[in-house]
Amino acid sequence: MIELYTANTPNGVKIPIALEELGLDYRLITLNLAAGEQKRPAFLALNPNGRIPVIVDPDGPAGQPISVFESGAILLYLAQKTAGLLPDNASARWRAMEYLFLQVSAVGPMFGQAGWFLRSTAQPIPVAVERYRSESVRLTGVLEARLSQQPWLAGTEYSLADISHYGWLRVVDYAGVELSRFPAVQDWVARISARPAVQRALARLQ
Amino acid sequence: MIELYTANTPNGVKIPIALEELGLDYRLITLNLAAGEQKRPAFLALNPNGRIPVIVDPDGPAGQPISVFESGAILLYLAQKTAGLLPDNASARWRAMEYLFLQVSAVGPMFGQAGWFLRSTAQPIPVAVERYRSESVRLTGVLEARLSQQPWLAGTEYSLADISHYGWLRVVDYAGVELSRFPAVQDWVARISARPAVQRALARLQ
Repeated sequence: MIELYTANTPNGVKIPIALEELGLDYRLITLNLAAGEQKRPAFLALNPNGRIPVIVDPDGPAGQPISVFESGAILLYLAQKTAGLLPDNASARWRAMEYLFLQVSAVGPMFGQAGWFLRSTAQPIPVAVERYRSESVRLTGVLEARLSQQPWLAGTEYSLADISHYGWLRVVDYAGVELSRFPAVQDWVARISARPAVQRALARLQ
Repeated sequence: MIELYTANTPNGVKIPIALEELGLDYRLITLNLAAGEQKRPAFLALNPNGRIPVIVDPDGPAGQPISVFESGAILLYLAQKTAGLLPDNASARWRAMEYLFLQVSAVGPMFGQAGWFLRSTAQPIPVAVERYRSESVRLTGVLEARLSQQPWLAGTEYSLADISHYGWLRVVDYAGVELSRFPAVQDWVARISARPAVQRALARLQ
């Protein structure tokens, strides 16, 4: 059974959702990030960067055990293991890959910085708050444009691109973005939230 | 022939290097980012996020033309097209994927923020400078640990993970990191810089 090391964060919800969508059994190991459990030697042996999520699959390629860190790499690993989470059509598959990478390289980092500067400094730093909030709004606009034209980020099929973005978009107010200004994104969040697999994953993380 | 839209930036050098390593012909279209060419309608039709790099491959899957944005997606596209840039061994291949995603999700965004706050604000903002410079140093330490044990990020083989990280690590002083404090990374940068394909790519971008 796959072991999943994660926590209830925008990044940490991706893999439980993917595993539930794929119907794969997994053992959930929730780390206490505030206590620094992700920086302990046993965990650093799995991910030297000291970040969740990480999986250990005892039944990896050629039947050998394997561990994988970085949420984007794990999503692609699970997609390859199961032939799921990605469209069969090549063109739609590369759309999914584009939006997966947009999430990990831009939406995740920028929303995270916006949230931090909105609440973690002793004094407000307007230059930094504005830099990250405005970029978060701009990126949400890129998703709004896409989701105004297609039901899912890859096109007609729900994919790992949607799973990857959902963790942040469902809590986008944390980054200072008003979801109601982006109706296509808001509708997409609601459609994902209604999925039984998503509800099961979030319930297990409570 | 593949069309490549890029510029001479840490992110923009990845794809010319990959194409040169693979021996693929390409037409280089250099965008003037300061003039906002990446925000023009014709380019936004290729990447609605308005960022380089982008490729257009007239000979895509099933012989159909395809465009791909996001440097990480493009690297994986080229790897799949050519069966190059990734180790054949499954375990090493997932190491390459982990370090590819570490670059796009952490090294790229954090080094970029460090560089911006070190030189782009009217008044220095110590909280922000320290936040991003210390994270850049920490991440370089993660790479140092890896490259002290293995010659390349995936292990014994040069891969797209090395290409992805090289663009930032070769100019890491921009992010306030002293490369000489990380001898294994410094040696790895020198080995990549000495590769003829890398030299050809950087010469074309001048």
